Amino acid sequence: MYSKNLEKFNGNEILLKQFSQIVGFDYINDLIEESKPLFNKKIVHVNSTLYGGGVVEILNDLIIMMNELGIDTEWHQIKGSPEFFTTTKIIHNALQGAEKSLSGKRKRIYLEVNRRNSIFNQLSDKDCVIIHDPQPLPIINFYRKRQPWIWRCHIDLSNRNPIVWNFISKFINKYDAMIVSEEKYKQIVNLPQEIIMPSINPFNDKNKKLSQKRLTHYLRKYGIKNDKPIITQISRFDKWKDPIGVVKAFKIIKKEFDCKLILLGNMAQDDPEGQKIYEELLKHIKNEPDIIISTAESSLLVNTLQTISKVVIQKSIREGFALTVSEALWKGTPVVGGNVGGIPQQIIDGKTGYLVNNIEECAESVLKLLENPNLAEKIGKAGREHVKNNFLMTRHLMDYIKLLKKTVINYKV
Amino acid sequence: MYSKNLEKFNGNEILLKQFSQIVGFDYINDLIEESKPLFNKKIVHVNSTLYGGGVVEILNDLIIMMNELGIDTEWHQIKGSPEFFTTTKIIHNALQGAEKSLSGKRKRIYLEVNRRNSIFNQLSDKDCVIIHDPQPLPIINFYRKRQPWIWRCHIDLSNRNPIVWNFISKFINKYDAMIVSEEKYKQIVNLPQEIIMPSINPFNDKNKKLSQKRLTHYLRKYGIKNDKPIITQISRFDKWKDPIGVVKAFKIIKKEFDCKLILLGNMAQDDPEGQKIYEELLKHIKNEPDIIISTAESSLLVNTLQTISKVVIQKSIREGFALTVSEALWKGTPVVGGNVGGIPQQIIDGKTGYLVNNIEECAESVLKLLENPNLAEKIGKAGREHVKNNFLMTRHLMDYIKLLKKTVINYKV
Repeated sequence: MYSKNLEKFNGNEILLKQFSQIVGFDYINDLIEESKPLFNKKIVHVNSTLYGGGVVEILNDLIIMMNELGIDTEWHQIKGSPEFFTTTKIIHNALQGAEKSLSGKRKRIYLEVNRRNSIFNQLSDKDCVIIHDPQPLPIINFYRKRQPWIWRCHIDLSNRNPIVWNFISKFINKYDAMIVSEEKYKQIVNLPQEIIMPSINPFNDKNKKLSQKRLTHYLRKYGIKNDKPIITQISRFDKWKDPIGVVKAFKIIKKEFDCKLILLGNMAQDDPEGQKIYEELLKHIKNEPDIIISTAESSLLVNTLQTISKVVIQKSIREGFALTVSEALWKGTPVVGGNVGGIPQQIIDGKTGYLVNNIEECAESVLKLLENPNLAEKIGKAGREHVKNNFLMTRHLMDYIKLLKKTVINYKV
Repeated sequence: MYSKNLEKFNGNEILLKQFSQIVGFDYINDLIEESKPLFNKKIVHVNSTLYGGGVVEILNDLIIMMNELGIDTEWHQIKGSPEFFTTTKIIHNALQGAEKSLSGKRKRIYLEVNRRNSIFNQLSDKDCVIIHDPQPLPIINFYRKRQPWIWRCHIDLSNRNPIVWNFISKFINKYDAMIVSEEKYKQIVNLPQEIIMPSINPFNDKNKKLSQKRLTHYLRKYGIKNDKPIITQISRFDKWKDPIGVVKAFKIIKKEFDCKLILLGNMAQDDPEGQKIYEELLKHIKNEPDIIISTAESSLLVNTLQTISKVVIQKSIREGFALTVSEALWKGTPVVGGNVGGIPQQIIDGKTGYLVNNIEECAESVLKLLENPNLAEKIGKAGREHVKNNFLMTRHLMDYIKLLKKTVINYKV
C-alpha cells in the first residue's frame, strides 16, 4: 500500500519516503489512509512570497508531500506592486499591534491588486482554496465561490489593532474556515477554526544530521573553540528575546561552572530599539572572554551550535512560536526556555526541558543540566521524542489532511 | 459588438476602452474579431519575476487585455531558490555573450527547481502554454504535453555562448514555436518563429500626458531650469550608450546654437567599466554649466524630459530594442538615434527622426532640428504616428492573438 501509492509519484526524491525513516512506515501509511477521500481533489495554496521566508519554506515541502499522497495540490502567488506591499506591511504590523490605520487610497490599492490577481488565477475547477496571510485575503471578493475557502493566518493576533482588524474581518467572514497557530486566537471570528502548529523539516541544512568532521569544520570556519562546555541562545538581538537577561544568567552560572556562552543572531531590522539593545549587550559582555557574539547568517552554523551545545537557552519574554526550541530538541540538546508563546508547547517542564520565568530560574536550570550530564541526556532524548511526535512536517501534513477532509467532503455551495 | 464583449468583463477599469481613445474603436473591433476563435480558450503565461521588470510590466497589462477579449489567460510564476537564480543569471549572461559555462551541479539545480514547479502548477487543462525566458524553459520536460507550447525569449541572442546555447537547445526543441524580438535571431532554431516587437503603455507614468502645470512642477522638483532649448539622452551610463559621444556632439552643437544637454540615467550595476565611463564623463563636462547629469530614478521625470526636450538623442553603439525612442516619439519629440539594434525599426530616417553613425552626424542632425522648428514639429508628429501604429500595446496584443490562432487552432497532440 505504502510503496504502491508513492511509486506513482513522478519525482526523483520522494519526501514521504525520507520521512518514513524517522516517523516510521506506519505513520506514512496512516497519512495515505487518512488522505484517501482527498485523492485527486484539486487544492490550491495562494500566498505572496515577499514576507515570511519560513512560511514559504514549509509550504514548499508540504505541497510536494500532498502531491505524493495523490492530492492535486497547486501553489499560486499573487503579484503586487511596491505600493501594495507597503500597504500589506502596514496591515501586518497593525495586526501585531502597531497604531496605524489604512487610508482610503491604501485600501483601494489592496483591493485593486487582488482584483487583478483574480484575473491571473482561475480557481473555478478547484475543490478547495487555501489563502495564506493578509496579502491575498480579499481576493475572495472577486470570484464566484464554488468551493470551500480557508484562510491560514500565520500572524500573532494577540495585540491586533481593532480598526485594521475590523476592516479585514469583512473578508475573513466570507471564508469557510480559518487556521491559526494558537488556542487563544480562536474566539475572535465567527467561523470554524483550527489550530495548526508549525513544524520543522529534519532534512534541511538547519536540522540534518552533521558528521563529527563537519561539526569540527563549521566550528573552525566560524572561529569557535569547543574547549569548554558551550551554552547557546540563537535569536534576534531584540528586547523580547532578552539577550541581556541571558548574559546576566550566564554570569551567575559561570561562578559555579566553567563554560562559554554563544549568542548567535541578527539585528532586528528597522528597529532603533534593537540597535540600543545590541549596544547595551556589547557593554555587558566587555571583559568576558567566554561570551561570544556572532551575527553570521548560516543555517549550518545554527545546526552545529544546536548540536554541540550542552544546553540551549531561549529566554524569551514575549514570543511567537520559537521553532528554535524544537530545532535544538531535535538534536537531543536540552532547552531552557521562557514560559511564553509557543515555548510551553515544546518544553514540557522537567521532561523535555525547563520553563523559566526570570534570570535566577534560568541560571538554576542551566546549572542543573550542566552539572548532571545524565539528566541532560535523558531530557534531550525526551525532547527529541516530543519533537518527533509533534513538530515534524508529517504531523503538520496530517493536520492539513484532517482539516481538508472536514472542509472539502460534503461541502455544498 | 465592441461594447457587448467588453461589458462582460468584470473589471472596474477596462483597458481596451482606454486604448480605443488612442487607436480608435475600429482597431479594438479588429482585436475582438481576430480573437473570436480563441474565445474561452485557456492560455497560461509562465515567468519568474526576479529579472526583467519591463517584461513583467508589459505582461501585467497584456494579460488583462487578453481576458477582456474573452481569452481565459492566466499568469503563473515559478518559485526558485537563490542558487537557482544565480544559475539562471549565468545562463542569461551567457546568452548575451559571457564566457561562462554551467557546472553539472548548476544544471541539476536548474532542472530540479523546474521539476518542483511542475508539481505546483497543473497545466493539463490548458490550450496553450507560453513560457517566458530561460528560467522556466525546462519545465516542459516534466509534463505530459497535451497542448502547444511557445517559448518567448526576451534576450538579445546575437552573441550567445554556444556551449550554454547547446545545453538549453535541448529544451527549446520540445516547443512548438518560439517568439523573438528581431529578424536576425530567426535562423537559430529549427521551429516556427515569430517576431514580436516590444511596446509601450501610453497610460503609465512614463508615457501619460502631463499638464503644463505638472511639467513645471517636475522640472522645479528636480532642479532643472527650462531657460534654453533642452536636448536629452535618457540611458544607462555605459559605453554602449556612448554618453561621452553625446557630450562631444553637444560641444559641436553648442558652437552653433545655444542650448543645454541633460543626461539622465543610472549606473550600470556590477560593472567596473561603467564606473570608469562615469568618471570620464564627469571630466568631460567640467566647466560646462549647460550640461546636467542626473541619476534621479523617476518615471515622471523621464516623461517630463521627453516631453519638453527639443530633441531626444539615443546615440547607442550597440542596443537591444531601446524603447526610450518610442517613448520620446510618442510625445511628438523628434529623436536622433544610433543606427543599431531596434532603433531603425522606430526611426525611419528623415521621416520619424534621424539615424546617425558617428558624433559628427549626430551633431549635424540635432542642429538641423534645433534650427528648423517646423521640421522638428513635422518629424515629431510623424514619429508619434509611427509609434501609434507600431509600438503600442494593442499591436503587441494583436501579434499574440495572431500567433495563438496559428498555434492553438487545429493543434493535434
